[in-house]
Amino acid sequence: MGIRSFIHRLTAPSPSSSAPAGDYKLALLVNHELKMGKGKIGAQAGHASVKSVLNLGKKDPSRLDAWLTSGQAKICLKVEDEAAILSLVKSAKSMDIPAVIVRDAGRTQIPSNSLTVAAIGPALVDDIDKITGHLKLL
Amino acid sequence: MGIRSFIHRLTAPSPSSSAPAGDYKLALLVNHELKMGKGKIGAQAGHASVKSVLNLGKKDPSRLDAWLTSGQAKICLKVEDEAAILSLVKSAKSMDIPAVIVRDAGRTQIPSNSLTVAAIGPALVDDIDKITGHLKLL
Repeated sequence: MGIRSFIHRLTAPSPSSSAPAGDYKLALLVNHELKMGKGKIGAQAGHASVKSVLNLGKKDPSRLDAWLTSGQAKICLKVEDEAAILSLVKSAKSMDIPAVIVRDAGRTQIPSNSLTVAAIGPALVDDIDKITGHLKLL
Repeated sequence: MGIRSFIHRLTAPSPSSSAPAGDYKLALLVNHELKMGKGKIGAQAGHASVKSVLNLGKKDPSRLDAWLTSGQAKICLKVEDEAAILSLVKSAKSMDIPAVIVRDAGRTQIPSNSLTVAAIGPALVDDIDKITGHLKLL
Protein backbone atom coordinates (compact mmCIF):
# COMPACT_ATOMS: atom_id res chain seq x y z
CA MET A 1 0.00 0.00 0.00
CA GLY A 2 1.14 3.52 -0.74
CA ILE A 3 0.93 4.67 2.83
CA ARG A 4 3.13 1.85 4.08
CA SER A 5 5.85 2.69 1.58
CA PHE A 6 5.64 6.30 2.66
CA ILE A 7 6.00 5.47 6.33
CA HIS A 8 8.86 3.12 5.55
CA ARG A 9 10.64 5.96 3.78
CA LEU A 10 10.12 8.21 6.78
CA THR A 11 11.39 5.73 9.34
CA ALA A 12 14.38 4.34 7.45
CA PRO A 13 17.38 6.23 6.11
CA SER A 14 17.06 6.69 2.38
CA PRO A 15 20.30 5.79 0.63
CA SER A 16 18.89 7.01 -2.68
CA SER A 17 18.15 10.47 -1.29
CA SER A 18 19.13 13.29 -3.59
CA ALA A 19 18.80 16.04 -0.98
CA PRO A 20 21.96 18.04 -0.28
CA ALA A 21 23.84 16.94 2.85
CA GLY A 22 23.76 19.24 5.87
CA ASP A 23 21.57 20.34 8.77
CA TYR A 24 17.90 20.98 8.06
CA LYS A 25 15.32 22.97 9.95
CA LEU A 26 11.77 24.28 9.76
CA ALA A 27 11.14 27.90 10.73
CA LEU A 28 7.71 28.76 12.11
CA LEU A 29 6.91 32.46 11.72
CA VAL A 30 4.32 33.57 14.27
CA ASN A 31 2.21 36.66 13.58
CA HIS A 32 2.92 38.85 16.58
CA GLU A 33 0.20 41.45 15.91
CA LEU A 34 -2.50 38.89 16.72
CA LYS A 35 -1.32 38.63 20.35
CA MET A 36 -2.16 34.93 20.45
CA GLY A 37 -1.91 33.06 23.72
CA LYS A 38 0.27 29.99 24.27
CA GLY A 39 -2.43 27.46 23.45
CA LYS A 40 -3.42 29.20 20.25
CA ILE A 41 0.21 29.39 19.16
CA GLY A 42 0.70 25.69 19.91
CA ALA A 43 -2.28 24.67 17.79
CA GLN A 44 -1.38 26.97 14.90
CA ALA A 45 2.26 25.83 14.95
CA GLY A 46 0.97 22.27 14.82
CA HIS A 47 -1.15 23.10 11.76
CA ALA A 48 1.81 24.72 10.01
CA SER A 49 4.14 21.81 10.80
CA VAL A 50 1.74 19.19 9.43
CA LYS A 51 1.03 21.30 6.35
CA SER A 52 4.77 21.63 5.69
CA VAL A 53 5.27 17.88 5.90
CA LEU A 54 2.42 17.16 3.48
CA ASN A 55 3.56 19.92 1.11
CA LEU A 56 7.18 18.80 0.97
CA GLY A 57 6.19 15.13 0.81
CA LYS A 58 4.46 15.96 -2.46
CA LYS A 59 7.09 18.32 -3.88
CA ASP A 60 10.42 16.93 -2.74
CA PRO A 61 10.31 13.74 -0.66
CA SER A 62 14.09 13.45 -0.41
CA ARG A 63 14.33 16.85 1.31
CA LEU A 64 11.53 15.81 3.66
CA ASP A 65 13.42 12.59 4.46
CA ALA A 66 16.58 14.56 5.16
CA TRP A 67 14.78 16.68 7.75
CA LEU A 68 12.75 13.84 9.31
CA THR A 69 15.79 11.65 9.80
CA SER A 70 18.00 14.42 11.22
CA GLY A 71 16.06 15.50 14.29
CA GLN A 72 13.21 17.52 12.72
CA ALA A 73 14.54 20.80 14.10
CA LYS A 74 11.91 23.53 14.47
CA ILE A 75 12.21 27.10 15.65
CA CYS A 76 9.53 29.69 16.33
CA LEU A 77 10.28 33.24 15.23
CA LYS A 78 8.42 36.46 15.86
CA VAL A 79 7.24 38.53 12.88
CA GLU A 80 5.45 41.84 13.35
CA ASP A 81 2.46 41.38 11.06
CA GLU A 82 0.84 39.57 8.16
CA ALA A 83 2.41 41.76 5.47
CA ALA A 84 5.90 41.04 6.79
CA ILE A 85 5.18 37.30 6.88
CA LEU A 86 3.88 37.29 3.30
CA SER A 87 6.99 39.13 2.15
CA LEU A 88 9.23 36.46 3.76
CA VAL A 89 7.15 33.67 2.21
CA LYS A 90 7.58 35.31 -1.19
CA SER A 91 11.35 35.50 -0.68
CA ALA A 92 11.45 31.81 0.26
CA LYS A 93 9.50 30.76 -2.82
CA SER A 94 11.74 32.86 -5.06
CA MET A 95 14.69 30.83 -3.70
CA ASP A 96 12.85 27.52 -4.20
CA ILE A 97 12.52 27.03 -0.44
CA PRO A 98 9.17 25.50 0.54
CA ALA A 99 6.75 27.76 2.40
CA VAL A 100 3.17 27.40 3.59
CA ILE A 101 0.79 29.69 5.42
CA VAL A 102 -1.99 28.91 7.89
CA ARG A 103 -5.12 31.02 8.16
CA ASP A 104 -7.50 30.58 11.05
CA ALA A 105 -11.25 30.17 10.92
CA GLY A 106 -11.26 32.61 13.81
CA ARG A 107 -13.72 30.84 16.07
CA THR A 108 -11.62 31.83 19.07
CA GLN A 109 -9.44 34.78 20.08
CA ILE A 110 -8.70 36.33 16.67
CA PRO A 111 -10.48 37.73 13.57
CA SER A 112 -11.60 35.18 10.98
CA ASN A 113 -9.13 34.39 8.19
CA SER A 114 -6.13 35.84 10.06
CA LEU A 115 -2.74 34.59 8.94
CA THR A 116 -1.51 33.01 12.18
CA VAL A 117 1.68 31.13 11.29
CA ALA A 118 3.80 30.55 8.21
CA ALA A 119 6.34 27.77 7.91
CA ILE A 120 9.50 28.13 5.84
CA GLY A 121 11.30 24.86 5.14
CA PRO A 122 12.17 22.19 5.92
CA ALA A 123 15.37 23.25 4.20
CA LEU A 124 19.09 23.58 4.84
CA VAL A 125 19.78 25.77 7.87
CA ASP A 126 21.98 28.11 5.84
CA ASP A 127 19.20 28.68 3.30
CA ILE A 128 16.57 29.29 5.99
CA ASP A 129 18.87 31.75 7.72
CA LYS A 130 19.25 33.79 4.54
CA ILE A 131 15.55 34.60 4.83
CA THR A 132 14.89 34.55 8.57
CA GLY A 133 18.31 35.32 10.09
CA HIS A 134 17.23 38.82 11.16
CA LEU A 135 14.19 37.64 13.11
CA LYS A 136 14.03 37.18 16.88
CA LEU A 137 13.10 33.93 18.59
CA LEU A 138 9.57 33.98 19.93
CA MET B 1 5.77 5.97 -5.92
CA GLY B 2 4.63 5.26 -2.42
CA ILE B 3 4.80 8.83 -1.29
CA ARG B 4 2.61 10.03 -4.15
CA SER B 5 -0.11 7.53 -3.30
CA PHE B 6 0.08 8.65 0.30
CA ILE B 7 -0.30 12.31 -0.57
CA HIS B 8 -3.15 11.49 -2.94
CA ARG B 9 -4.93 9.76 -0.07
CA LEU B 10 -4.45 12.80 2.12
CA THR B 11 -5.70 15.30 -0.41
CA ALA B 12 -8.68 13.40 -1.78
CA PRO B 13 -11.69 12.12 0.14
CA SER B 14 -11.40 8.41 0.67
CA PRO B 15 -14.68 6.68 -0.18
CA SER B 16 -13.30 3.37 1.05
CA SER B 17 -12.51 4.80 4.50
CA SER B 18 -13.45 2.54 7.36
CA ALA B 19 -13.10 5.19 10.05
CA PRO B 20 -16.26 5.93 12.05
CA ALA B 21 -18.14 9.05 10.92
CA GLY B 22 -18.05 12.10 13.20
CA ASP B 23 -15.86 15.00 14.23
CA TYR B 24 -12.19 14.30 14.88
CA LYS B 25 -9.58 16.22 16.85
CA LEU B 26 -6.05 16.04 18.15
CA ALA B 27 -5.41 17.05 21.76
CA LEU B 28 -1.96 18.44 22.59
CA LEU B 29 -1.16 18.09 26.30
CA VAL B 30 1.43 20.63 27.37
CA ASN B 31 3.56 19.98 30.46
CA HIS B 32 2.86 23.00 32.63
CA GLU B 33 5.58 22.36 35.22
CA LEU B 34 8.29 23.14 32.64
CA LYS B 35 7.09 26.77 32.33
CA MET B 36 7.93 26.80 28.64
CA GLY B 37 7.69 30.06 26.72
CA LYS B 38 5.50 30.58 23.67
CA GLY B 39 8.19 29.72 21.14
CA LYS B 40 9.18 26.54 22.92
CA ILE B 41 5.54 25.46 23.12
CA GLY B 42 5.05 26.18 19.41
CA ALA B 43 8.03 24.04 18.41
CA GLN B 44 7.12 21.17 20.74
CA ALA B 45 3.47 21.22 19.62
CA GLY B 46 4.78 21.04 16.05
CA HIS B 47 6.88 17.99 16.91
CA ALA B 48 3.91 16.26 18.56
CA SER B 49 1.58 17.03 15.64
CA VAL B 50 3.96 15.62 13.03
CA LYS B 51 4.68 12.56 15.20
CA SER B 52 0.94 11.92 15.53
CA VAL B 53 0.43 12.09 11.78
CA LEU B 54 3.27 9.65 11.09
CA ASN B 55 2.14 7.32 13.88
CA LEU B 56 -1.48 7.17 12.77
CA GLY B 57 -0.50 6.97 9.10
CA LYS B 58 1.22 3.71 9.97
CA LYS B 59 -1.41 2.31 12.35
CA ASP B 60 -4.74 3.44 10.95
CA PRO B 61 -4.62 5.49 7.74
CA SER B 62 -8.41 5.73 7.46
CA ARG B 63 -8.63 7.49 10.82
CA LEU B 64 -5.83 9.83 9.75
CA ASP B 65 -7.73 10.58 6.54
CA ALA B 66 -10.88 11.31 8.52
CA TRP B 67 -9.05 13.94 10.59
CA LEU B 68 -7.04 15.45 7.72
CA THR B 69 -10.10 15.91 5.54
CA SER B 70 -12.29 17.36 8.29
CA GLY B 71 -10.34 20.44 9.32
CA GLN B 72 -7.48 18.91 11.36
CA ALA B 73 -8.83 20.34 14.63
CA LYS B 74 -6.18 20.73 17.34
CA ILE B 75 -6.47 21.97 20.90
CA CYS B 76 -3.77 22.66 23.47
CA LEU B 77 -4.53 21.61 27.04
CA LYS B 78 -2.65 22.27 30.25
CA VAL B 79 -1.47 19.30 32.36
CA GLU B 80 0.31 19.83 35.66
CA ASP B 81 3.30 17.52 35.22
CA GLU B 82 4.92 14.58 33.42
CA ALA B 83 3.34 11.93 35.66
CA ALA B 84 -0.15 13.25 34.93
CA ILE B 85 0.57 13.29 31.19
CA LEU B 86 1.86 9.72 31.23
CA SER B 87 -1.26 8.60 33.07
CA LEU B 88 -3.49 10.18 30.40
CA VAL B 89 -1.42 8.59 27.62
CA LYS B 90 -1.86 5.20 29.32
CA SER B 91 -5.63 5.74 29.49
CA ALA B 92 -5.73 6.63 25.81
CA LYS B 93 -3.79 3.55 24.78
CA SER B 94 -6.02 1.32 26.91
CA MET B 95 -8.98 2.66 24.87
CA ASP B 96 -7.14 2.11 21.57
CA ILE B 97 -6.81 5.86 21.03
CA PRO B 98 -3.46 6.84 19.49
CA ALA B 99 -1.05 8.72 21.71
CA VAL B 100 2.55 9.89 21.33
CA ILE B 101 4.94 11.75 23.60
CA VAL B 102 7.71 14.19 22.77
CA ARG B 103 10.86 14.48 24.86
CA ASP B 104 13.24 17.37 24.40
CA ALA B 105 16.99 17.20 24.01
CA GLY B 106 17.03 20.14 26.40
CA ARG B 107 19.48 22.35 24.58
CA THR B 108 17.40 25.36 25.58
CA GLN B 109 15.23 26.42 28.48
CA ILE B 110 14.48 23.03 30.09
CA PRO B 111 16.22 19.95 31.53
CA SER B 112 17.35 17.32 29.01
CA ASN B 113 14.87 14.53 28.26
CA SER B 114 11.89 16.42 29.67
CA LEU B 115 8.49 15.30 28.43
CA THR B 116 7.27 18.52 26.83
CA VAL B 117 4.06 17.64 24.97
CA ALA B 118 1.93 14.54 24.43
CA ALA B 119 -0.62 14.22 21.65
CA ILE B 120 -3.78 12.16 22.05
CA GLY B 121 -5.59 11.40 18.79
CA PRO B 122 -6.45 12.17 16.11
CA ALA B 123 -9.65 10.45 17.20
CA LEU B 124 -13.37 11.12 17.53
CA VAL B 125 -14.04 14.18 19.68
CA ASP B 126 -16.24 12.17 22.06
CA ASP B 127 -13.47 9.64 22.65
CA ILE B 128 -10.83 12.33 23.22
CA ASP B 129 -13.13 14.10 25.66
CA LYS B 130 -13.51 10.93 27.76
CA ILE B 131 -9.81 11.24 28.54
CA THR B 132 -9.15 14.97 28.44
CA GLY B 133 -12.56 16.50 29.21
CA HIS B 134 -11.47 17.61 32.70
CA LEU B 135 -8.43 19.54 31.48
CA LYS B 136 -8.27 23.31 30.98
CA LEU B 137 -7.32 24.97 27.69
CA LEU B 138 -3.79 26.30 27.73
